[in-house]
Amino acid sequence: MERRNICLTLAFDGTNYAGWQRQEDEVTVQGTLEAALRQLTGEASHVTGSSRTDAGVHARGFVANFYTRSTIPPKRWLYPLNNILPEDIRVLSSCEVEENFHAQRDALAKTYVYRFHNLPYDLVLDRHYVAQEKGPMDDEAMMACAKLFCGEHDFGAFRSTGSSAKTTRRTLFQSSLSKSGDRYTYQVTGNGFLYNMVRILVGTLFYVAHGTRSLEEVTKALEGQDRLLAGKVAPAKGLCLEKVWYDEDELRDFLDQQR
Amino acid sequence: MERRNICLTLAFDGTNYAGWQRQEDEVTVQGTLEAALRQLTGEASHVTGSSRTDAGVHARGFVANFYTRSTIPPKRWLYPLNNILPEDIRVLSSCEVEENFHAQRDALAKTYVYRFHNLPYDLVLDRHYVAQEKGPMDDEAMMACAKLFCGEHDFGAFRSTGSSAKTTRRTLFQSSLSKSGDRYTYQVTGNGFLYNMVRILVGTLFYVAHGTRSLEEVTKALEGQDRLLAGKVAPAKGLCLEKVWYDEDELRDFLDQQR
Repeated sequence: MERRNICLTLAFDGTNYAGWQRQEDEVTVQGTLEAALRQLTGEASHVTGSSRTDAGVHARGFVANFYTRSTIPPKRWLYPLNNILPEDIRVLSSCEVEENFHAQRDALAKTYVYRFHNLPYDLVLDRHYVAQEKGPMDDEAMMACAKLFCGEHDFGAFRSTGSSAKTTRRTLFQSSLSKSGDRYTYQVTGNGFLYNMVRILVGTLFYVAHGTRSLEEVTKALEGQDRLLAGKVAPAKGLCLEKVWYDEDELRDFLDQQR
Repeated sequence: MERRNICLTLAFDGTNYAGWQRQEDEVTVQGTLEAALRQLTGEASHVTGSSRTDAGVHARGFVANFYTRSTIPPKRWLYPLNNILPEDIRVLSSCEVEENFHAQRDALAKTYVYRFHNLPYDLVLDRHYVAQEKGPMDDEAMMACAKLFCGEHDFGAFRSTGSSAKTTRRTLFQSSLSKSGDRYTYQVTGNGFLYNMVRILVGTLFYVAHGTRSLEEVTKALEGQDRLLAGKVAPAKGLCLEKVWYDEDELRDFLDQQR
């Protein structure tokens, strides 16, 4: 059988995983998916993921690709893989892609959503998917801060150490905070994200909400590398990778809708 | 200390509980709450719940009352109880109520929500809170069926055996199905519910959606006791007790908003 490049869209609940990337002695999404593929096809497939999500981070639209000589038709990987995978990882769709498609390098942009609430008690339903941030919150200041993040900036202040990126300039195409009832939803779309960047953007929103940082300080943080001007790293459980964009037209349509 | 009647509003994730009611050798919400109260006050409190939710059913607004001679101020039970309770049970509020208030007998009405989807794969996030119903679905027929349930009927066909209710007449004040994206939400408010009644109402919606039952058959089911004319019992995990109503004005305002 000819070798094919298969692309999967995945959703996973990150609660019980040490992130995406395969690690010895840790249960990871990549490791679990590769084991399922081996069981299904007998091949030792290496799966390339669109991003290295952290431990506890979720995904609704993670993209991954792998090469196979299996006779399983490209669009029919959903049922056999989901039969093997645990219920907290689901294949949503599968298709054949070009020989040289690479889920990470070819991504034009990614959309993340961070969900949180400000209630005095933590949630019960959704407690693994919505973070709690206590204390008084200035919603308007947070919403203004979310807009500040938009555009091309040096996000060097918004990453944790351990990041190996060569440049810290990134462009956020869209960055907005909305509130519905008790729930806050921060949505951000960018051409790339540094290590822990979304969680630090959200931690900065929290600092601004409490008055611990001013919008002026955030503006300064966006100009330089001063990690202390940005906020803390918000908890992993509120973060979800919603969508990875590979098609320019689709991305433009989406961004137009967000305006 | 004088004996007081304390009323709690609770949320719980029913996934890991054998329902509300205390049972030997089973972990239940009532049993867990009574153990927490004993640990906190040293008293062996019996807690009266507003309803006997089934195993796997959730609640966002369960109401319970108990008598205590504790010196804990009536409005201050939230923090000490939540410190002891597992994270899948939360006290949302507490207050003192009249000596003879009874969380079950005094309830005027209850509002339940049943969440489901019709995707070919099950959800990952929210998989414990949203049920999957496969197969082709006629949304309009389901929505028409949901309306049929409204009003006073003999719901004898819509209960599982083991129900000890004296009469099977109940009044549903509101019964409606809505859809947002992939998610269906069935919301029902009634003055009382028979054993498994909401889940059978939803199972009937499913049968109507697939053409297994006609609206005429449902109308007949609402006139008599023929269990076969109604539908199956929908899975517990989609069901959530949202609110228990004790105040006529509040209930009327809510129902007005639903129209």
